[in-house]
Amino acid sequence: MSSPLHAGLEAHFAALEKFLAAQELAFEPEVRPMVRDILAHPGKRLRPLLAFGSGAGGPPPAALVRGAGIIELVHLATLVHDDVLDGADTRHGSATPNRTHGAHAAVLFGDALFAHALVLAADHPTPELCRIVARASREVCSGEVCQTFSRGQDDLSLDDYYRHIRLKTAELFEGACQVGALMADRPAGHVAACALFGRHLGVAYQIYDDLIDLLQDDAKAGKTLGTDAASGKLTLPMLLERDRSGKGFLVELRAGGDPRRLISTEAWRESFRRLDAEIAAAEQALAPAEGSPSPFFLLRLTAFLRDAAARLSPRA
Amino acid sequence: MSSPLHAGLEAHFAALEKFLAAQELAFEPEVRPMVRDILAHPGKRLRPLLAFGSGAGGPPPAALVRGAGIIELVHLATLVHDDVLDGADTRHGSATPNRTHGAHAAVLFGDALFAHALVLAADHPTPELCRIVARASREVCSGEVCQTFSRGQDDLSLDDYYRHIRLKTAELFEGACQVGALMADRPAGHVAACALFGRHLGVAYQIYDDLIDLLQDDAKAGKTLGTDAASGKLTLPMLLERDRSGKGFLVELRAGGDPRRLISTEAWRESFRRLDAEIAAAEQALAPAEGSPSPFFLLRLTAFLRDAAARLSPRA
Repeated sequence: MSSPLHAGLEAHFAALEKFLAAQELAFEPEVRPMVRDILAHPGKRLRPLLAFGSGAGGPPPAALVRGAGIIELVHLATLVHDDVLDGADTRHGSATPNRTHGAHAAVLFGDALFAHALVLAADHPTPELCRIVARASREVCSGEVCQTFSRGQDDLSLDDYYRHIRLKTAELFEGACQVGALMADRPAGHVAACALFGRHLGVAYQIYDDLIDLLQDDAKAGKTLGTDAASGKLTLPMLLERDRSGKGFLVELRAGGDPRRLISTEAWRESFRRLDAEIAAAEQALAPAEGSPSPFFLLRLTAFLRDAAARLSPRA
Repeated sequence: MSSPLHAGLEAHFAALEKFLAAQELAFEPEVRPMVRDILAHPGKRLRPLLAFGSGAGGPPPAALVRGAGIIELVHLATLVHDDVLDGADTRHGSATPNRTHGAHAAVLFGDALFAHALVLAADHPTPELCRIVARASREVCSGEVCQTFSRGQDDLSLDDYYRHIRLKTAELFEGACQVGALMADRPAGHVAACALFGRHLGVAYQIYDDLIDLLQDDAKAGKTLGTDAASGKLTLPMLLERDRSGKGFLVELRAGGDPRRLISTEAWRESFRRLDAEIAAAEQALAPAEGSPSPFFLLRLTAFLRDAAARLSPRA
């Protein structure tokens, strides 16, 4: 957690890792090694970062650390299931639970992890935390179901595309910000501002992810280029090109054409324009939080995403 | 729901089915057909029956129906995942979600269903309902992980066997009873009595299930005899025989020997004795609830299980 994005929140992240490590004991002895394994190689802890940014100011209150930890546990549970479904062997350089323990144990472990996040949420004196966490989790999974069903669906509308990525990614980003601001006892206007920031950032992040899949070098991205198109998934640049140039594009794409060469400059430009618009909307959403320490931390995330996008656009 | 076990609770079960059917609209349009499908062919609604029995008396309050529905949704979510993991094509005579929509969508749908149950639980004014539901869910999944890991493990202790079945089955039975009594505003002593009843009934039910796997005709049980042994799972009669006659039994069993012929009369007798003991413990647990309508409904369940066990024991 030594990235510039985490600077100034070192105490928060130290407390978070301690909190997460302590959860092991809530599980049966047989399950504890699985908990240890998925915590051993942390990812970016992006959702806790959103929570901490939204509740920033002074040393981290225990409720904020717990809230951030709960959101991360939900995220980890979804990763465990994603890795089973994708048959992924490694994540963050270490073996996935399905690789180590088989798909059977991994699906059930993901369930237990998610349920444990809700047990922790229910420790809060009001059901508010449970409501946000359970709701965001339901939307994440619903969004993934929708996206699964939309594979190979040529007439997927732009509205449905946005709805799916909002559910799949933006809901938990929004929940993370909301939980962070609430657990740090921020006023309602601040909570709503951070929540809206999270929602727009989530949409932006997912559009960026779509663009990475098409544009970044395999080595850099650590993943194979164009996997979305190969799996029948239509992402934003493809949908925009379809709407611009008609069915011929899809015919060529489905015949195995390289989406990077089939997508026109106009569709790339429009994709980046839409990404910029979400980033700008996220930044504007924070206006009511001005004067609090939150914009300092949260606006680093939009700046980071804007820079990353600028490095990504070779043709736009 | 016209079994004698449900008699007198017709209004409760009618309200339950109405409540469950209404949940469809909480999901995205793409997911709604999956919700409809799993509700179309109801099972025994055993956990709602425990909730209704524990909160019985007069017409069903809305909170009780909601509580029973939440518990059933958790149970349905676990069934969706079980069917993916077992590759099962049908349940209650209709196609499983993994059969109709593929394993990918089915795992995610199970997640969404479970999350929705927690969203509903969070509607309750206190976090108590969330806590019970999330906790029981975590234990169910942990128990299934433990049981998965214990397959092929020759030295599984009786204590671990009991711990696993308590987690896998008894925790949600206990939760169902607790939720039912709480949502019907019963006094603390009544809640605790029903909870303990549920716990013992759950253990009894799981032992009975182990015995069915070994003793009931294929046609009657609707499943293949001896599947537990074939999958490397050691159930109560096998563990007792192992402890009685030593390693030779396991060698013959693992070599493909028919467990029904390898298990001695003594081990059968001891299995049935242990089943009876759990049934008796469940019944005794209800003493503090005497004078309330609950024993009338709940004791029908132990009587039913005792009768079913008596019909099952050809050699004991």
